[in-house]
Amino acid sequence: MLLGSIEAGGTKFVCAVGDSDFNVVDSTVIPTTTPDETFSKTIEFFKQFKDLSALSISSFGPIQIRKDSPQYGYITDTPKYGWSNVNFLGTMKENFDVPMYWTTDVNGSVFGEYIKLKSRGQRVSSLVYYTIGTGVGAGIIMNGQFVGDEGHPELGHVKLKRHEDDLDFDGICPYHKDCLEGLVSGPTFEARLGKPGPEVPLTNHVWDIMAYYVAQAALQATLTFRPEKIIFGGGVVSEDFLKKVRFEFAKQLNGYIEIKDLDSYICTPTLSDNGSATYGNFALGAALVKHEIA
Amino acid sequence: MLLGSIEAGGTKFVCAVGDSDFNVVDSTVIPTTTPDETFSKTIEFFKQFKDLSALSISSFGPIQIRKDSPQYGYITDTPKYGWSNVNFLGTMKENFDVPMYWTTDVNGSVFGEYIKLKSRGQRVSSLVYYTIGTGVGAGIIMNGQFVGDEGHPELGHVKLKRHEDDLDFDGICPYHKDCLEGLVSGPTFEARLGKPGPEVPLTNHVWDIMAYYVAQAALQATLTFRPEKIIFGGGVVSEDFLKKVRFEFAKQLNGYIEIKDLDSYICTPTLSDNGSATYGNFALGAALVKHEIA
Repeated sequence: MLLGSIEAGGTKFVCAVGDSDFNVVDSTVIPTTTPDETFSKTIEFFKQFKDLSALSISSFGPIQIRKDSPQYGYITDTPKYGWSNVNFLGTMKENFDVPMYWTTDVNGSVFGEYIKLKSRGQRVSSLVYYTIGTGVGAGIIMNGQFVGDEGHPELGHVKLKRHEDDLDFDGICPYHKDCLEGLVSGPTFEARLGKPGPEVPLTNHVWDIMAYYVAQAALQATLTFRPEKIIFGGGVVSEDFLKKVRFEFAKQLNGYIEIKDLDSYICTPTLSDNGSATYGNFALGAALVKHEIA
Repeated sequence: MLLGSIEAGGTKFVCAVGDSDFNVVDSTVIPTTTPDETFSKTIEFFKQFKDLSALSISSFGPIQIRKDSPQYGYITDTPKYGWSNVNFLGTMKENFDVPMYWTTDVNGSVFGEYIKLKSRGQRVSSLVYYTIGTGVGAGIIMNGQFVGDEGHPELGHVKLKRHEDDLDFDGICPYHKDCLEGLVSGPTFEARLGKPGPEVPLTNHVWDIMAYYVAQAALQATLTFRPEKIIFGGGVVSEDFLKKVRFEFAKQLNGYIEIKDLDSYICTPTLSDNGSATYGNFALGAALVKHEIA
């Protein structure tokens, strides 16, 4: 059995083919240019594999996930130029006659982590996965199912209590200014300090401010879902940054709920090299083949 | 079939017995004094009904809902004097040999609204129910199931962006000061204005500040769950107050997600006279009897 995975990001598409143990057999990275060009390279890659059994797509968004919508399978109103109202799933269906799964990039990632933890024998039925990179989003599994009904979650756009040393910063979200994404996404480093995040040492106070906000996100997720684990991925996140986040989180929670092991509760992904979404896609593809999901 | 319902609040226990159509056959209100006294009056009430088929308890909290916990069925660390570590479910089980359901007060309410909406033929698989009274909490149904894993949600304790005219108010939550509950629960009127909420006219600016915060809660719930409906109940809520909340909500969301009919999206309960939890308990009891839930 060969399983196809597309992790469609705003910067690049990571396309991969895996075996039934979810090992990567082949993969390629395609820059996200125009839909036509990007899709045609994507199709070309997968056409090499004649016996593909399923294809799972985890896409940047917003996307339409309601199966009863005429726009099911579309990227909808995205700020990414040229990509609004693009029929992603339909384009793939025109080219491949295999079962397909369609979800958000963060749902792909959280599902990968979920399956990996389960394969290690851990009791896990609820997980939250935040990505903090160019944008901020979260995928959530509750009782083994993705959360979201009328649409997918948009946890990057919640409001937060402002840090007292950060009140002069307006935030950069074009919709909400100082929502979570507007305060902690990668491009906020340029906006606050005039240089990119990787050039800003962890001793810079901006990292404490970021931790204050990211801890609020973890607190919201805790009070909302009471999950077994909150995973943080994306370019902005490092283990050293999460140390600051845990410290702030404990302060903000103030003992209201008992969290037994904070180091494993707020953590980086189990799957290395940003492999969570690809692994998740393989698992979703395999579940399609076995008719465990539709 | 007779179904028993206990809506256990910090001020009063509403005990009711209903028929298989969830009509109230008899009910009583018992003040919440000591556990011994309150339980014995509760038991006395239900002992009148010899053919009780099930009993569902929706309790104030925090409560232990994990069935694998030795404290399952307990009220745990509550600030309510005398009620910490009280074995509520166990006490009922000693007295009645019927199937019992144990959940939070807000889960009882959200389930009542869910069943009522379904009985009217509405498509509904996700709902959020906030209560804003002495405390603030929320019950959530997603894909037809309660949300919560390691414990129940505690949505009253999330942090919020502070209103610029309210920065001098510290908030009254003993754990978090200016969390949602610390900013909008009923007793905040005394703390801000020195008089109780019912004496404060809607023209007072404090209601705008409250709406700013409650709208943030609705925004969080929207971005988190994308539910079909967000219901607000509790003593602080009125239809006129929700008009303000909707106005603030639309401003804060800023068109990021399309909400088709805001008046029916953010709304008061369908069941009148605070009847949601009792109705929900009847429905949960009936589901127990039919082995639809355990």
